[in-house]
Amino acid sequence: MDSNGVDEQMKLVEGAGGYVLEDVPHLSDYILDLPTYPNPLQSNAAYSVVRQYFVDEDDTVPQKIVVHKDSPRGTHFRRAGPRQKVCFKSADVRACIVTCGGLCPGLNTVIREIVCGLHFMYGVKEVTGVNCGFRGFYSRNTVTLTPKSVSDIHKRGGTMLGTSRGGHDTLKIVDNIEDREINQVYIIGGDGTQKGASAIYKEIRRRGLKVAVAGIPKTIDNDIPVIDKSFGFDTAVEEAQRAINAAHVEATSVENGIGLVKLMGRYSGFIAMYATLASRDVDCCLIPESPFYLEGKGGLYEFIAKRLTENGHMVIVVAEGAGQDLLAESIDQQDASGNKLLKDVGLWMSLKIKEHFAKESKMDITLKYIDPTYMIRAIPANASDNVYSTLLAQSAVHGAMAGYTGFTAGLVNGRQTYIPFNRITERQNKVVITDRMWARMLSSTNQPSFMNPPKGTTSVTE
Amino acid sequence: MDSNGVDEQMKLVEGAGGYVLEDVPHLSDYILDLPTYPNPLQSNAAYSVVRQYFVDEDDTVPQKIVVHKDSPRGTHFRRAGPRQKVCFKSADVRACIVTCGGLCPGLNTVIREIVCGLHFMYGVKEVTGVNCGFRGFYSRNTVTLTPKSVSDIHKRGGTMLGTSRGGHDTLKIVDNIEDREINQVYIIGGDGTQKGASAIYKEIRRRGLKVAVAGIPKTIDNDIPVIDKSFGFDTAVEEAQRAINAAHVEATSVENGIGLVKLMGRYSGFIAMYATLASRDVDCCLIPESPFYLEGKGGLYEFIAKRLTENGHMVIVVAEGAGQDLLAESIDQQDASGNKLLKDVGLWMSLKIKEHFAKESKMDITLKYIDPTYMIRAIPANASDNVYSTLLAQSAVHGAMAGYTGFTAGLVNGRQTYIPFNRITERQNKVVITDRMWARMLSSTNQPSFMNPPKGTTSVTE
Amino acid sequence: MDSNGVDEQMKLVEGAGGYVLEDVPHLSDYILDLPTYPNPLQSNAAYSVVRQYFVDEDDTVPQKIVVHKDSPRGTHFRRAGPRQKVCFKSADVRACIVTCGGLCPGLNTVIREIVCGLHFMYGVKEVTGVNCGFRGFYSRNTVTLTPKSVSDIHKRGGTMLGTSRGGHDTLKIVDNIEDREINQVYIIGGDGTQKGASAIYKEIRRRGLKVAVAGIPKTIDNDIPVIDKSFGFDTAVEEAQRAINAAHVEATSVENGIGLVKLMGRYSGFIAMYATLASRDVDCCLIPESPFYLEGKGGLYEFIAKRLTENGHMVIVVAEGAGQDLLAESIDQQDASGNKLLKDVGLWMSLKIKEHFAKESKMDITLKYIDPTYMIRAIPANASDNVYSTLLAQSAVHGAMAGYTGFTAGLVNGRQTYIPFNRITERQNKVVITDRMWARMLSSTNQPSFMNPPKGTTSVTE
Amino acid sequence: MDSNGVDEQMKLVEGAGGYVLEDVPHLSDYILDLPTYPNPLQSNAAYSVVRQYFVDEDDTVPQKIVVHKDSPRGTHFRRAGPRQKVCFKSADVRACIVTCGGLCPGLNTVIREIVCGLHFMYGVKEVTGVNCGFRGFYSRNTVTLTPKSVSDIHKRGGTMLGTSRGGHDTLKIVDNIEDREINQVYIIGGDGTQKGASAIYKEIRRRGLKVAVAGIPKTIDNDIPVIDKSFGFDTAVEEAQRAINAAHVEATSVENGIGLVKLMGRYSGFIAMYATLASRDVDCCLIPESPFYLEGKGGLYEFIAKRLTENGHMVIVVAEGAGQDLLAESIDQQDASGNKLLKDVGLWMSLKIKEHFAKESKMDITLKYIDPTYMIRAIPANASDNVYSTLLAQSAVHGAMAGYTGFTAGLVNGRQTYIPFNRITERQNKVVITDRMWARMLSSTNQPSFMNPPKGTTSVTE
Repeated sequence: MDSNGVDEQMKLVEGAGGYVLEDVPHLSDYILDLPTYPNPLQSNAAYSVVRQYFVDEDDTVPQKIVVHKDSPRGTHFRRAGPRQKVCFKSADVRACIVTCGGLCPGLNTVIREIVCGLHFMYGVKEVTGVNCGFRGFYSRNTVTLTPKSVSDIHKRGGTMLGTSRGGHDTLKIVDNIEDREINQVYIIGGDGTQKGASAIYKEIRRRGLKVAVAGIPKTIDNDIPVIDKSFGFDTAVEEAQRAINAAHVEATSVENGIGLVKLMGRYSGFIAMYATLASRDVDCCLIPESPFYLEGKGGLYEFIAKRLTENGHMVIVVAEGAGQDLLAESIDQQDASGNKLLKDVGLWMSLKIKEHFAKESKMDITLKYIDPTYMIRAIPANASDNVYSTLLAQSAVHGAMAGYTGFTAGLVNGRQTYIPFNRITERQNKVVITDRMWARMLSSTNQPSFMNPPKGTTSVTE
Repeated sequence: MDSNGVDEQMKLVEGAGGYVLEDVPHLSDYILDLPTYPNPLQSNAAYSVVRQYFVDEDDTVPQKIVVHKDSPRGTHFRRAGPRQKVCFKSADVRACIVTCGGLCPGLNTVIREIVCGLHFMYGVKEVTGVNCGFRGFYSRNTVTLTPKSVSDIHKRGGTMLGTSRGGHDTLKIVDNIEDREINQVYIIGGDGTQKGASAIYKEIRRRGLKVAVAGIPKTIDNDIPVIDKSFGFDTAVEEAQRAINAAHVEATSVENGIGLVKLMGRYSGFIAMYATLASRDVDCCLIPESPFYLEGKGGLYEFIAKRLTENGHMVIVVAEGAGQDLLAESIDQQDASGNKLLKDVGLWMSLKIKEHFAKESKMDITLKYIDPTYMIRAIPANASDNVYSTLLAQSAVHGAMAGYTGFTAGLVNGRQTYIPFNRITERQNKVVITDRMWARMLSSTNQPSFMNPPKGTTSVTE
Repeated sequence: MDSNGVDEQMKLVEGAGGYVLEDVPHLSDYILDLPTYPNPLQSNAAYSVVRQYFVDEDDTVPQKIVVHKDSPRGTHFRRAGPRQKVCFKSADVRACIVTCGGLCPGLNTVIREIVCGLHFMYGVKEVTGVNCGFRGFYSRNTVTLTPKSVSDIHKRGGTMLGTSRGGHDTLKIVDNIEDREINQVYIIGGDGTQKGASAIYKEIRRRGLKVAVAGIPKTIDNDIPVIDKSFGFDTAVEEAQRAINAAHVEATSVENGIGLVKLMGRYSGFIAMYATLASRDVDCCLIPESPFYLEGKGGLYEFIAKRLTENGHMVIVVAEGAGQDLLAESIDQQDASGNKLLKDVGLWMSLKIKEHFAKESKMDITLKYIDPTYMIRAIPANASDNVYSTLLAQSAVHGAMAGYTGFTAGLVNGRQTYIPFNRITERQNKVVITDRMWARMLSSTNQPSFMNPPKGTTSVTE
Repeated sequence: MDSNGVDEQMKLVEGAGGYVLEDVPHLSDYILDLPTYPNPLQSNAAYSVVRQYFVDEDDTVPQKIVVHKDSPRGTHFRRAGPRQKVCFKSADVRACIVTCGGLCPGLNTVIREIVCGLHFMYGVKEVTGVNCGFRGFYSRNTVTLTPKSVSDIHKRGGTMLGTSRGGHDTLKIVDNIEDREINQVYIIGGDGTQKGASAIYKEIRRRGLKVAVAGIPKTIDNDIPVIDKSFGFDTAVEEAQRAINAAHVEATSVENGIGLVKLMGRYSGFIAMYATLASRDVDCCLIPESPFYLEGKGGLYEFIAKRLTENGHMVIVVAEGAGQDLLAESIDQQDASGNKLLKDVGLWMSLKIKEHFAKESKMDITLKYIDPTYMIRAIPANASDNVYSTLLAQSAVHGAMAGYTGFTAGLVNGRQTYIPFNRITERQNKVVITDRMWARMLSSTNQPSFMNPPKGTTSVTE
């Protein structure tokens, strides 16, 4: 709780029937007598023809929607969208945008739509792009963003602003924001980045600055909690089909052919699971959330031998974060150059499977390993992610203009909402392997459960 | 209400806080002492490892989720999924599948997953495909469906069963169902088809047959109400981008170039609207729900002239059902062969625009017309629609096995549910042009509102 | 023959064994004492490492290469490529580029590579783009072209310069060339355009100007003679597969389904023939070079009925120029708007086939018509066409720098050559229906020969 | 020379003007009084309408076509195509097809068209597929091939017959051919496979069997000499663009980004070179034929540092066989598992470049490595390769039916020919780095020539 009696992170509002609103901060929480202005959308040709355009102040969206007749109503989030009143005069707005972390389809669409949203909806002219991630705030040049300069970027992969990992230095960043008189900060990135955004918001609040901080969650792994899915995820699952198809063709064109595909997912196996479900050609899907082991009864080698004997070929999909314990234990700790490569679970599994069947078995296998990671990350968003990214960007703009701050824009049960930073960063979203989606996956591959490792054999534990 | 005091169509259950459940019928509503059996999934290797797999009998999903602190809870639908108890012994099940109406990406995936779901989840062996739509029940051969015979069909467009329009003859169909001792009927089609399914369900109920009737809503136009979106819609919007891109290239490569693209949507403009939002290259989007006119102040010709003068080129997207009144009035009623073609709004607009600028204006335009309809309908589902179609099919199977009948499986606020037929068929889903999505579209094109047709000029009215 | 005793169009050089070289004009043919300079490529880092880089002055390529032991050697063309000596100082070169006629994949690559070739190979800095075709020489602004401004254009379809049909006014164009002191003119277009280029070359020669005129043949229809194939052709055939696949899916998903695809080819059916050969799903391919008729024995209706009875579905590919006589005769000559549309052979055939089977037959058919023309023309070149376009552009640049003029750069038997304009424009390239490629096509479709129209029935004659 | 005074490998025929025909063997070379039959194509509906369909016995195609006025005529090959007379009665033909070596787009098309060509053109009914390469002749089951069973395989990647490396045992194979009374053997594979085919042909000839042996050259690397290019090559270059595009996006989205793409090409760098030429986004292309070195002046590290300083990013394409000497020397010879991976030049270069810039330089680079090999090999042929593969297959069929044997069907200067085995196998086709195509490549990348390795530094030598 800060001196105003309001939690820095989120504001709880309770209602009848167990209703709880986990509200996001607002500039007026710490700036007294914050002036408001009529929303310029009122006189916008496109919007004024639409009745009931503005979001009702009281609109909220429940987090849990599978309910019983007598369920308590539970947690809700504030609905995103344009408000009747805004807290910035358009002419006064100086916005900046930064992208952090790995590439993800849709980044350029989000940048484009923040610029176009500010410009066309609110008449904001000053938008700056910060180059190459957080460190760009203090160490690099910036670039002026206009509707014309971003006009075609959604057709290209990557991020036109450049990105980087790390480089977060809260004080330097906020100093820089103050120096440049920026009053709206749009931060696009994963959970680490959203933590950084949260720190920036708190420091800005501590200094009492009238600066709105809006996060847009970006994670190709879909590992951010609360939200339905992250932008770029659909595109990634779609593009992963190419690799799985190729693995299937390679596997079926030789005797005892194995196609092994590594997909993204350091801590969560969503892409691997959905790509497997979409493809129907996968025999085994290994993800970080579900332990597995190689040797012995019920192990992977046994399953491979069985499936090859039955079908003559198989396709394995492995998420990059699967089997990390097995891998750590297996690699010789001498710092030979080659061993660095073995930290890649796909290369490591390729070697292990080949060695196993070369030495211990009479089966003559042919394994082809495909790592499409950078080919997936780098493509432009598909149509569905383009629309989704557009809506996210517009939500963030509406939120910042309305004076909300310290929030992430996100889709909850199909509705655009504002979510307090701490709900996004407090944990990672993971595949729940006791849930039906994982069961569907198991049912489609008929792979073993890897639940009973033989004694003395190491299994990967979560 | 029938003699059991239960409405044939749906059962209303009320709860506290304004909670209403619009429940679907169940075989036990009209069959007394219906025996139940343990769900065979209990001993399925894939599912048994998953705790809490079965859906709680009381799970429901609200239709309206933008709520206020004190909102009444409103309409809910029954959550889809496997139940602890089923009403069929697997060995007794004789299922059939039929596809009706126009093509839609994902049809083959739905067929495949009903077959595989029945087979692998429930051990059902007898599944029959009815050829070429409703009339196939009485006039055509059927085909035996096995996991092997449907194994690769999801990679192909169209429907392996064949389809047709019309041909619905309730009595003949139900006679045929009785004759063949079929007890699960899966009907995939649009709102007309779902009405047919509803009639079949009522006749079956009238005869007191133990036959579950499950609908899977199919409409590339997304014009079915209640559900979030129909399968194949994402794929269609994605594929429409090709046509819009081509129109954009054609338009920008000549002086005063116009690219005109017709997209699907007889009564609702969802594909046109989303394809426009996803593309960002469209200058004008015309849909059935929003009236427009050609001549005079604020009309389309004026807008075209203005946009060409400003930019030198423009792209127009028109839904097939847009401007039907204008068109009806404009076409010479003599039955010349050529005039039949003019019932196609795209061809008609091409001619009208060319004629206008040839006669009345000094502008030398070049118009290229693209109709990608059949190229869009015929492609295979993308990954996201493949997963969605899979879930829909599995929901339908779980529902029928559990004894529900007279229902459509559909996604409501991101959750699989069972929806009573009448809620699907009582009206069509349309773009709400007083809603924010349409405002977003208008904002992205900056097209005129067509709200004030000059006196004496005909406007298309909704 | 001009006053120098040299034909304006081409120079014939004879040799032993029946060898004939049809040589292209050279600036020195009409400019006395034309100075030459060492080719700057000699000191270019990339080229100087390559031994034997320059083309031998005497290199030629035979037109006919299927020969007998004792065949005469026949016609040859001058091999393209860089010469030891050039006729322009790089600093003095003022080049311009114009694109004319319809779109074709690869146009932007050709533009890009002329600019980059002049710049990087020869150090030429002044390159101008003429906007929107021939008329751009006198009525429109031009655009300065630099390696930077053309850097990414090969990834986009269309032509960045804009294009138009007609507008050729030799005197005005040459006046303009003189006024701007342009001395290299690159003209990209089809046979009409190459005729225009030829007229420009003759007028320039008449005026005795030191201006090299180089043509690059562009025709998506592949209807230019002598050359192996035109750039963009491969890409067009590839893209046509989408439409044929869609037609196949539509046709196979209903009873008596017909998929009708119209492809480009006003006077020659190459795209239709190659697309049919590549696809293997086509039952009938109709091209301008091969007459056909609809009614009676051996006619199209009979074949359709037969194929539908056998297979239940069929795919027809029709080139846009096929059946023009039939069509001219069939259309009511009143100038009703709708009838204009019937000049499109695809729309006309759709109507005729539907009418025939509605009236005269008991067969209930479903016909879907697909016209992918503008979707094909507007895509970017594929890799193979990108490489081909690059080589063509470089050949043109080497030729102009070496002082050749009045030539078209073209591939002959896989080798880059310079071809006199008149050989390109004197006739059109057509599918030879007495040749093996057409027989291969017939063999793949098993369509009728349409050789014996019943008396009184009109057949299309070539 | 064998007892008939004819070389087993090829027959030389000389003519005027230095004409030499390197002819292929014929069954009549060693079988006396071989009966001939009229070609059944004469009465084929498709072919009989085509005048002049049969290839003139004397048709040949020159190998060298860049000629001078007085050049000698040089080597020629026999033109492929149907002959007036065939040496097999259709009812007697028992053909078999085998595919060997790595995958290549188009394999299934070749299989399909041999089957369909034999069936539809010649009425041959008995065609057998040998499973999984040469060893399939003696150790595996075979599969009966019919037009129906191969009808759709050209739309799938891989080979429906399966493939393997090695397994060649001439005597066992010929025994098997004799046992099964096979009289036409179609062998699809690379240069090793063609050597095997040659050995089979010789053994068959030694035994005096009436068995025609036809090779179809398959090499995605394009490393087979004499022929213009191998089937699948265009498709591979096209698909490689995806990887290069992704590398470009990754590189441009970070500071000092390097995208490294490994492409196929063990001994020859054609795919790398053409993919680089087609893309225009590549800064450095390394192939087996052109030596390079890492350290010191003029080395790769220096060039990377320079290009990053100038542009901030770069893309490197490396053929799999490039730099093998460097690599052999650099890898620690202890047989650590990880080191096996380093035999992959792409992984090795990734590590070396990262290590170099981590240790010795102040440049903070980000390198992303992409290996699309198996994603490229496994795709279906594009339209152009489908047509090419069709023609190759038909040429092989025409040749075998006409009694030619010991030949490879191949495209020479755009014409289908029959080439004696030894000309295909005597050497490998390589990029000639003193030729213009390589100069074009160097000109497009502006990479260093790597010609002057510092003393003591190892360079890769050819």
